[in-house]
Amino acid sequence: MQAADKIAVVEKYVQAFARNDMSLIEEIYADDATVEDPVGSDALRGKAAVVVFYQQAFNSGAKLELTGPARCAGNAVAFPFCVNVGTMKVHAIDVFEFNSAGKVVTMRAYWGPENVTV
Amino acid sequence: MQAADKIAVVEKYVQAFARNDMSLIEEIYADDATVEDPVGSDALRGKAAVVVFYQQAFNSGAKLELTGPARCAGNAVAFPFCVNVGTMKVHAIDVFEFNSAGKVVTMRAYWGPENVTV
Repeated sequence: MQAADKIAVVEKYVQAFARNDMSLIEEIYADDATVEDPVGSDALRGKAAVVVFYQQAFNSGAKLELTGPARCAGNAVAFPFCVNVGTMKVHAIDVFEFNSAGKVVTMRAYWGPENVTV
Repeated sequence: MQAADKIAVVEKYVQAFARNDMSLIEEIYADDATVEDPVGSDALRGKAAVVVFYQQAFNSGAKLELTGPARCAGNAVAFPFCVNVGTMKVHAIDVFEFNSAGKVVTMRAYWGPENVTV
């Protein structure tokens, strides 16, 4: 998988939030994907659970803003961003790992209370 | 492990490069640590191999500059930074995982050719 393809997935992810477009989420993720957000919590498993998670995020009005370049390495991409929910901001880093079909098979989100400003 | 303790480790890591201080590297890492830099390469295993790796980095004159806040989650911290080696810059994200003793037991560095500017 080329770096440009991984970066395109990150851009689709940001666009999914911008447009509340669940079809982009469904396109990006593998059927057997896991989402651990934040890292340390129980991972969601499977696309149905993933879609429910993002529907809740979309309903909150969350929008994503990249705060630096995506970093591609191995089968993964890591990227820093800010989640804006009204006046609340959360600085996070997500790591996507891709399967051989180019779909996100694991997502881990790194953020904690220290990264939240109201 | 408290977030403040993880953030202190990240700050020591930056300081290690600033001062070419290997004692900070030896303090931060567990004896059985692995370092995968970049992700997708063969991981180094054990503190002796880790020290050799950082000695090479120190010899290159590399200095680290954080480009956003550290994100603490679970047993880990992820942080975005720029490596400055002369005029060369590399935008990277490192993820440290800690053991129960508060030592870094896995380090994964996310960066690729797209993140290098000369």
